[in-house]
Amino acid sequence: MELLNRHVTIRKFTPKEISTDLLKNIIYSGTRASTTGNMQLYSVVVSRDKKMKEKLLPLHFNQPVAKSAPVLLTFVADFNRFSKWCEYNSATPGYNNLLSFTNALIDAVLVAQNVCIAAENNGLGICYLGTTAYNAKEHIDVLELPKLTFPVTTVAIGYPEEIPDLTDRIPLEGIMHDEVYTNYDEVSIKKLYAFKEGLESSKQFVQENNMQTLAQVFTNVRYKQADNEFFSKKMLETIKAQGFVID
Amino acid sequence: MELLNRHVTIRKFTPKEISTDLLKNIIYSGTRASTTGNMQLYSVVVSRDKKMKEKLLPLHFNQPVAKSAPVLLTFVADFNRFSKWCEYNSATPGYNNLLSFTNALIDAVLVAQNVCIAAENNGLGICYLGTTAYNAKEHIDVLELPKLTFPVTTVAIGYPEEIPDLTDRIPLEGIMHDEVYTNYDEVSIKKLYAFKEGLESSKQFVQENNMQTLAQVFTNVRYKQADNEFFSKKMLETIKAQGFVID
Repeated sequence: MELLNRHVTIRKFTPKEISTDLLKNIIYSGTRASTTGNMQLYSVVVSRDKKMKEKLLPLHFNQPVAKSAPVLLTFVADFNRFSKWCEYNSATPGYNNLLSFTNALIDAVLVAQNVCIAAENNGLGICYLGTTAYNAKEHIDVLELPKLTFPVTTVAIGYPEEIPDLTDRIPLEGIMHDEVYTNYDEVSIKKLYAFKEGLESSKQFVQENNMQTLAQVFTNVRYKQADNEFFSKKMLETIKAQGFVID
Repeated sequence: MELLNRHVTIRKFTPKEISTDLLKNIIYSGTRASTTGNMQLYSVVVSRDKKMKEKLLPLHFNQPVAKSAPVLLTFVADFNRFSKWCEYNSATPGYNNLLSFTNALIDAVLVAQNVCIAAENNGLGICYLGTTAYNAKEHIDVLELPKLTFPVTTVAIGYPEEIPDLTDRIPLEGIMHDEVYTNYDEVSIKKLYAFKEGLESSKQFVQENNMQTLAQVFTNVRYKQADNEFFSKKMLETIKAQGFVID
């Protein structure tokens, strides 16, 4: 619990390499996670080579954390391997659909989170890069991912240069619902987000971006509708191009 | 690591209840997981009430594990709360799209896995119920989930009646790829799945189902194309009905 409760995202790493044995150990712990029907619908691509990392860096919008990390692990939703096993065993796979895609995506995330916890338990630090799904097509090209696979998320991993303070979370009652979902109104929302909005870092964020509210930093700067729609369109095309039928 | 490495799915629970404090503690550990931009795009619905559980049971195809568990936790991808926060703060949310849906789905799974690990660390056992996504629409009705939310997975949780042996996994080299994805051929597939196919339980499974190969048990009995396509269609309709634009 203590390990989970003190988790922080690490954005600066020392140059120290991660040994292959340690890498294998933490990925092994990943494989112990539950997956759909124990089908293990995922793969992990390890990026350590300098040239490969240089190719990936722009796909993560050149985030310094991606550059600083000695290892990038890309977690891939993978129905290719399982389907091939079926084909070589006189069985006809039927996994090129939305439900199967979703199951593989869930499997990949379960494994990723186990790997992150195992990494932290060994003194490593991690940062999830959400940019993988934005540039899934380019990841597919660079990492040579076949049909029926899809890169879901990447974890930047290494030895922490420094350990930042815990980041804020909304109060537990804001996310926990008893028996049925209790919807939010202005009063409950204001209460839940008061701490976040009151942080010095949040106020600075609002000011630096010339916004009136913290929410506007999200909607107008960080996660804009036009960007979301652009990358959604690209993502859907890529999912389809990977052989999944979504209609 | 030890905790992660000895994880097994528990399908039979003792009648012992989980205290509210313990439940809150493990869900709190869930909230310490990384999420997209720290937006916490998830909610957790706790089902303990007998009548509510009776409504949910058929949605999990009456799996005995769902009946046996004192608590069901449904992890919900949730862009409703965040969008409401935006609206109450003079910000226009643009999160009714595929990318945002995917981010919320990933967030929900990260939190779920943390909750499971925290639960196991407290002597509880867990079983993921993949059936939630199959019957998302019905979950939405029973749990009263609003627009811009989607139930991703449910975890059955309780004190284990018995601890089964570790289940099989394919060898680590089967899921780990060095720099680029190495595709599989008949030789590598046969090698990776030899252990799984050779298990007594697998052989029994093949025989009981009157199949020739273990893969056929998956394609012809457990995860059939026709079922996958039926539930994929339903799932896509439900995602759209929840307000996400997928086209």
